[in-house]
Amino acid sequence: MNPKNSLNRGFKGFPYAAKPCSADEIGQYGWNLYGDDLPYPMAVIKEAELEHNLRWMQAFAKERNIFIAPHGKTTMSPQLFRRQLEMGAWGMTFATVFQINAGLEAGAKRIIIANQVVNDADLDSLAYLLEADRELHVWFLVDSLAQVDQIESWAQRRAKKLRFDCLLEVGIEGQRTGCRTFDQAIELAGCIRSSASLALGGIECYEGGLAHCQSEHDRHEVGVLMARVEEITKACDRLGFFEGDQIILSAGGSAVFDLVVPGLRLSLSKPVAGVLRSGCYITHDHDFYSKMLHNVEQREGLKASLLPALEVWAMVQSVPEPGLAILSCGKRDISYDLSLPIVTHYAAKGRREKVPAPADWAISALNDQHAYLRFAPGPLAPRVGDRIIMGISHPCTTFDKWTWMPVVDAAGTVVSAITTRF
Amino acid sequence: MNPKNSLNRGFKGFPYAAKPCSADEIGQYGWNLYGDDLPYPMAVIKEAELEHNLRWMQAFAKERNIFIAPHGKTTMSPQLFRRQLEMGAWGMTFATVFQINAGLEAGAKRIIIANQVVNDADLDSLAYLLEADRELHVWFLVDSLAQVDQIESWAQRRAKKLRFDCLLEVGIEGQRTGCRTFDQAIELAGCIRSSASLALGGIECYEGGLAHCQSEHDRHEVGVLMARVEEITKACDRLGFFEGDQIILSAGGSAVFDLVVPGLRLSLSKPVAGVLRSGCYITHDHDFYSKMLHNVEQREGLKASLLPALEVWAMVQSVPEPGLAILSCGKRDISYDLSLPIVTHYAAKGRREKVPAPADWAISALNDQHAYLRFAPGPLAPRVGDRIIMGISHPCTTFDKWTWMPVVDAAGTVVSAITTRF
Repeated sequence: MNPKNSLNRGFKGFPYAAKPCSADEIGQYGWNLYGDDLPYPMAVIKEAELEHNLRWMQAFAKERNIFIAPHGKTTMSPQLFRRQLEMGAWGMTFATVFQINAGLEAGAKRIIIANQVVNDADLDSLAYLLEADRELHVWFLVDSLAQVDQIESWAQRRAKKLRFDCLLEVGIEGQRTGCRTFDQAIELAGCIRSSASLALGGIECYEGGLAHCQSEHDRHEVGVLMARVEEITKACDRLGFFEGDQIILSAGGSAVFDLVVPGLRLSLSKPVAGVLRSGCYITHDHDFYSKMLHNVEQREGLKASLLPALEVWAMVQSVPEPGLAILSCGKRDISYDLSLPIVTHYAAKGRREKVPAPADWAISALNDQHAYLRFAPGPLAPRVGDRIIMGISHPCTTFDKWTWMPVVDAAGTVVSAITTRF
Repeated sequence: MNPKNSLNRGFKGFPYAAKPCSADEIGQYGWNLYGDDLPYPMAVIKEAELEHNLRWMQAFAKERNIFIAPHGKTTMSPQLFRRQLEMGAWGMTFATVFQINAGLEAGAKRIIIANQVVNDADLDSLAYLLEADRELHVWFLVDSLAQVDQIESWAQRRAKKLRFDCLLEVGIEGQRTGCRTFDQAIELAGCIRSSASLALGGIECYEGGLAHCQSEHDRHEVGVLMARVEEITKACDRLGFFEGDQIILSAGGSAVFDLVVPGLRLSLSKPVAGVLRSGCYITHDHDFYSKMLHNVEQREGLKASLLPALEVWAMVQSVPEPGLAILSCGKRDISYDLSLPIVTHYAAKGRREKVPAPADWAISALNDQHAYLRFAPGPLAPRVGDRIIMGISHPCTTFDKWTWMPVVDAAGTVVSAITTRF
């Protein structure tokens, strides 16, 4: 058993007196959130919503004849990766060479590193992996001649004959990485074609930075990007720059992934594998992605889509003055990068049920280990011992604050657990 | 050997091909930052500056006849705790019952939980620890009658005879936890005195939220707080509310800790242990605490004080347009809560030395895994393969993004390592 899957008191929130157990065995304890069997804060995943999201996204892709390689950086959890792969994911996406390790643990064999790999240590590690497992396929992004030079310099200094599979990244003016112009992209693709260290497997872009949560704007901007991707892809195909039996076309964050779908189904000289890389869909959220998905629903004519599956429970530890409650939950426990946590429900001290929180209960600030809950003073005030349930904005920055999370059923009973590899 | 001390490729940034080793043995590899032997990003601790800070803070306290119980939440690193304890720390401070585990690993026997403990699972865990080790002393904070009720309810339901040591927290209007008034504090102390589950060991406050980095303001505000602490402490002493052989008086974040020192040396009916809890001093930083310590130096008439000992190295992975470089370092790797990272130096591609970064190089944004470095376009522009060295603001939120960090000498050679327990 992987020691990282064996939960014990070294995992934040695992009770000291409980015997260590594997993530799969945790249900034996019969722990329940409403019973205060676990300390606070506790980030929890809701099983029914998780399963729904896994099925929903797989069906979304399948119906549109494309694949998914979910971005593993979101959860970094082998247990969740395994469920994504079992549900039919084509592969996994990661942001760094280090992160691949967690994908391998889950048995992933097709991996996209949606990022430039440029440094010696990462190239060493990647070569080590590829030489150790001939069934493993890894594609990383290339977006500059300078990066190609780095890789060729590495290959020369290490005397390596290896050819790395790569995708050429098409970028967006003013945004992150990727070639800005058609000419840059074609020159780079030609350079990759003639490189002894790289093989061009397809074209990649990331449209997420264009999303303003306004369908008219987002549709136009993503349309312009995907038209550029098409133009570059067709030229590379015509010029014979793609190697291998298929051409990979990949895009897709978690905000406006529906808009890239048509651009992933081009007709080219070889079979095309269109690959969406959305990661946040797996637990979704209560704010940023929630708003984005409302637009996806409208654009696709859907009545519903993803469900928020991750929440954080905290306890009121002090109500030091009227209108202010302090919660046992801070920057170490919950996302605060896109917005502060959203108070959705509370379970009064000793009660085995939750109710919607009053609309005026809001988190106004976080310290490292505390949250400030402001409320209108009155009879319906939080009390010491009440459990406050918070939704999040941006799953990535809550997952990375936990080494494990319990998975709970609708009654708050812990039925399983996941572990993470940040 | 604790498996968490055995570094291997499951630790972010540990090269895949390297044999697993203990944190102590890592020097055998001869890795050097300038040699690109480790991937980027990499958070590193500078050994000379670390040792300086450990000595400086211990001497600061010793000269003033007070103790330190450094806040372990900052680093959560048993290796660093051991150095703090060996340097003479009276004990360790933590924010949660979970965090104690890392202190025990380092051999701490006196632990302050600078926080309210209120929930069943935490009380269970704490009782479990105290029953397992009779030499362990743990004090936690109490600030309300409602909290005392929670603890007595737990004791009754568990049929526990245990008495928990506690400190009464004096708070500040509009800020975090703690009693707001003299009357509240005295009523609470009396209630603790008559509780079968609690024993009052002293008084605690946290002055850090008062610091505006203006000495006149800060001195006045902290003075008012410490006068209230004195008044409450003396009344509790007179009323016989303190139990045990000594009275603990504790305060001290990392911003204006000099200002609380006089208030920790009261003359009472029993010996007084004045305990500073500063945590960030161990690595200090390049911005927030750096500015705060300039004021400490001025107030104390010191020529120098703490040195920044933690920095993050990233590599330029793309320069996609004039004025913009993208670095391999994001929200998962470096603090962004008090300010964005500060570019201090760079080491040009292939060069084994660093030079100060041009003043116009600045981080403008972070994504999960990327940093945006803006610069004035011109001949002195960052290139793909350059190493960018960033200072931080707020050590706590960089430490919690790493499971280990190499410790390096002035030449960038990895001489040892620390591991963390978040």
